[in-house]
Amino acid sequence: MYRSHNCGELRSSDITKEVTLSGWVQVSREFGGLTFVDLRDRYGITQLVFNMEDNEALCTQARSLGREFVIKIVGTVRERSNKNPNRPTGDIEIEVSALEILNPSKVPPFTIEEESDGGDELRMQYRYLDLRRGPLQRNIKFRSKLALETRKYLDSQDFIEVETPFLIKSTPEGARDFVVPSRMNEGQFYALPQSPQTFKQILMVGGIDKYFQIVKCFRDEDLRADRQPEFTQIDCEMSYITRDQILATFEGLTVHLFKELKGIELAPFPHMSYDEALERYGSDKPDLRFDMEFIYLNEQMQGHGFNVFDGAETVVGIVAKGIADSYSNKDMKGLTEWMQRPQIGAKGLVYVKYQGDGSIKSTVGKFYSDDVLSTIGTQIGAEKGDVLFVLSGEEEKTRKQLNELRLEMGRRLDLIKEGDFKPLWVIDFPLLEWDEVSERFHAMHHPFTSPKKEDVERMLTGDHATMKALRADAYDLVINGSEIGGGSIRIHDRELQQRNFDLLGFTKEEAQAQFGFLMDAFEYGAPPHGGIAFGFDRLAAVLNGQSSIRDFIAFPKNNQGRDMMIDAPSPIDEEQLKELSISLNIQE
Amino acid sequence: MYRSHNCGELRSSDITKEVTLSGWVQVSREFGGLTFVDLRDRYGITQLVFNMEDNEALCTQARSLGREFVIKIVGTVRERSNKNPNRPTGDIEIEVSALEILNPSKVPPFTIEEESDGGDELRMQYRYLDLRRGPLQRNIKFRSKLALETRKYLDSQDFIEVETPFLIKSTPEGARDFVVPSRMNEGQFYALPQSPQTFKQILMVGGIDKYFQIVKCFRDEDLRADRQPEFTQIDCEMSYITRDQILATFEGLTVHLFKELKGIELAPFPHMSYDEALERYGSDKPDLRFDMEFIYLNEQMQGHGFNVFDGAETVVGIVAKGIADSYSNKDMKGLTEWMQRPQIGAKGLVYVKYQGDGSIKSTVGKFYSDDVLSTIGTQIGAEKGDVLFVLSGEEEKTRKQLNELRLEMGRRLDLIKEGDFKPLWVIDFPLLEWDEVSERFHAMHHPFTSPKKEDVERMLTGDHATMKALRADAYDLVINGSEIGGGSIRIHDRELQQRNFDLLGFTKEEAQAQFGFLMDAFEYGAPPHGGIAFGFDRLAAVLNGQSSIRDFIAFPKNNQGRDMMIDAPSPIDEEQLKELSISLNIQE
Repeated sequence: MYRSHNCGELRSSDITKEVTLSGWVQVSREFGGLTFVDLRDRYGITQLVFNMEDNEALCTQARSLGREFVIKIVGTVRERSNKNPNRPTGDIEIEVSALEILNPSKVPPFTIEEESDGGDELRMQYRYLDLRRGPLQRNIKFRSKLALETRKYLDSQDFIEVETPFLIKSTPEGARDFVVPSRMNEGQFYALPQSPQTFKQILMVGGIDKYFQIVKCFRDEDLRADRQPEFTQIDCEMSYITRDQILATFEGLTVHLFKELKGIELAPFPHMSYDEALERYGSDKPDLRFDMEFIYLNEQMQGHGFNVFDGAETVVGIVAKGIADSYSNKDMKGLTEWMQRPQIGAKGLVYVKYQGDGSIKSTVGKFYSDDVLSTIGTQIGAEKGDVLFVLSGEEEKTRKQLNELRLEMGRRLDLIKEGDFKPLWVIDFPLLEWDEVSERFHAMHHPFTSPKKEDVERMLTGDHATMKALRADAYDLVINGSEIGGGSIRIHDRELQQRNFDLLGFTKEEAQAQFGFLMDAFEYGAPPHGGIAFGFDRLAAVLNGQSSIRDFIAFPKNNQGRDMMIDAPSPIDEEQLKELSISLNIQE
Repeated sequence: MYRSHNCGELRSSDITKEVTLSGWVQVSREFGGLTFVDLRDRYGITQLVFNMEDNEALCTQARSLGREFVIKIVGTVRERSNKNPNRPTGDIEIEVSALEILNPSKVPPFTIEEESDGGDELRMQYRYLDLRRGPLQRNIKFRSKLALETRKYLDSQDFIEVETPFLIKSTPEGARDFVVPSRMNEGQFYALPQSPQTFKQILMVGGIDKYFQIVKCFRDEDLRADRQPEFTQIDCEMSYITRDQILATFEGLTVHLFKELKGIELAPFPHMSYDEALERYGSDKPDLRFDMEFIYLNEQMQGHGFNVFDGAETVVGIVAKGIADSYSNKDMKGLTEWMQRPQIGAKGLVYVKYQGDGSIKSTVGKFYSDDVLSTIGTQIGAEKGDVLFVLSGEEEKTRKQLNELRLEMGRRLDLIKEGDFKPLWVIDFPLLEWDEVSERFHAMHHPFTSPKKEDVERMLTGDHATMKALRADAYDLVINGSEIGGGSIRIHDRELQQRNFDLLGFTKEEAQAQFGFLMDAFEYGAPPHGGIAFGFDRLAAVLNGQSSIRDFIAFPKNNQGRDMMIDAPSPIDEEQLKELSISLNIQE
């Protein structure tokens, strides 16, 4: 037996008990004739004490212990003279009578404490050491609880968890597939699923009625920061269901998870159309933890001789409160340059300072008198001390730029309260996006998304302009500006699905080869259905107010898609290639 | 809204309520002026009634409905005159006032009822229709409950579910890996995990202490019947743990699952060594639902001039009760031929009939007098009416053959009671198997399995003969002759792990390239640990007394590894191959 108790459970009530503990040496300290060792396991830390006077051999052995040695001790629980109120076991310590080194340890390449001194790559290489640290232990445990609570809730709502296959068929639309050569079917490949989309729809045709799965998905994309080639989603689908029933179900799930896991009560989630979100915040995932809504200023600011504004489709601004006097010219210049970086691409940044002393200072003073600017200030509710920032240009682009400025000012002005959560359903997305470069439509959500009921007839018969205006029965859940998930009511009719594939530029043959099984299934009594998927890694991070999903994944890959610890991917044997009937084709 | 209730919940207490139901048309029957439609969904079947006299148009519409049409109806619940006690909704029916066809259906290629008339391949191609059938609906739902109960139990025991990666590194030992070419790392490949073995051990080094995961695993094997290239296991690992603690934990899980899901109380599981299992039953997964233990007869039957026995390493038999008088010569000939098939390969089958009238009839009467056979009968407890079957030859082979005979006689004599469950822990497996062909050792379990503590020193220093005799700290859970799972205490010491790789024929370089990360991890304070994995598909089948795992998998592949429904694997685009820097290398 390695332990009678773990390192987190002994209390005053256990004093005088003889116990056996095992764990890692967190730290060892000497005080005169005494040696104190903090013994750590997943459950906590318990102080061990060795006394040179009582047992010299044992104490000498204890002094040889290095950090992260794995030991087993037998000893007696006793009251601690110098209690540690910050530690659940802080009232007791163990007077050790026997010590066994189960495994020594080399000196770890970084400290295994709350804050480590190790860099990202080093910690990924020695992930087994990083995982011993408190923050990762808590995150990994949280993730496990999050999955279990999700399952319990969905089970209570009659959902069935169904495992869909990982070895499926490549459908090279959307992101790239990872493919798997088949040895038994020469020259053929499986693909790893980008999502179980078609299978969950097939399950609806199969009468499963309410499906969910917490499932790995795979996308071979060029990795941006905080994207992973394999990621996890909570994947759901329901039959005989309306959009509002789906939103209510998954709002219920979200409310439950915040309550159970974080003790947070969320208010009912507002709904906002895609158009409204873009108009008011310049984003389809607005962060509603602070206001700073967009103010359209075409009327007030055009026709004053300022050519930049006069020629612009859109003149739009936001008001930043209380910084007119504290933001220097240099600050303003810095902010302008920040907006002009290629990632944002603003040409410039116009501002109007409504200063504390009542004076007005502006980059466009030449064109607008103080009176005009003052009137505008009154109209838009700017007060003394506020700054109005204004951008202009093509509507879509300008809104995007102003969204970036709004988020940046929210951060700079500390408008985001820690522990504040503002969920939002964004609804009524466009069905199709026209891509000028490829001269074809792309599905805004995916090719299986249904247009809204009132748009079905127009979709079947309408012209090009009509297609651009179609609305999808699609929705996203946004929390604090992060997209947690999204979904849609699906097409369940062969003709409409075929029409969608036509619009997306599939030939009849391509559509049949890739998705024929689904369209065939639609002809055998497919029920109306819809669903949603939540990004599980993202949800775990957002629930904890954190921004990096990597800290919630036990074994993440780096930005080159590599597992630094096992050093994968890697070359494989010639023999393996031969069996798979493929050869390498490397550009020298 | 598509429904106010589902098709399984309306009762007498709902009579007079107006309800909306949606579902599939199971069957439609006409009786004079009435049309009855059975409406089906996941939850049950509700009878709808249409009356030609009351509403001719509606009733005519109802008569146009085909099987599997998807409809929505509004109607009033009323008492049924002709009640159906076999159906929970059998006391009521719905007098329909409005009917909407949500989706028509072609005529399904097979019947969607408890027993279908469709063949295997056809049902796999139209899996969405097969999934609507009662047996598959129940199996898929059972599987979901089984997973949830497993998770709840392991969570209650402080296990953390951790997701390990799917894109890992190829280690071409054991079964073949499925590999995934990396686009971003030219010429390199990921592999799909055959199991999360090394990752779960790394999690122990990382201080997770108790890990589990219900996880897909992948093996590119030539598929035997009832094997799948992707399958699911309950994968577990624990730190600071002894074998008996692991067995107790997972016996606890198994007992819990039988109790919760099937209402069955299992008695404590016996332990039996591998050697004993082979000696008594000729199998390391004996079916203990019936006795018929092996009886070793070398002493009694050698030295009587029967050369076949006299020259054999082993002479061993079983007693089949009560068939001496009913089994004809033809039956015996058939049985002998069954044993001589290449799958079993017995040279012949000796039998001794202790007939009801006290006479003895035997294939070896020439060599053994009735007195001798009678004495043997008394010694081994054979009674009037029993038959003694005897095989002889090389010990290992003969035991295997007799195991087949024992199982066959168990089936023929109907000794296996339905609903009977006999679990067994088989322990103390050999560590290494010597392969005469490749002249090297193979790991009986896997290369990370620890020898039993008392064998560690011998393993580090012993000779070839010693290696063959090493015992592993490994164990299997067997229920009713099916292997549910297995595991072992692992090596946690670099030197011992290196020694094992040496014995298994790895060069130092190979071992380091493939498993260096694990051996490195062992040097940073790896705790003693061990674990187990249960075959989840198999467990689901065994719990239901069924033999095919395919019926518990929503989307199984056929014996060629193909998904018949989506038709995968399939060729991929030239463009995809090019991006992956591979080309096809097909033998014309």
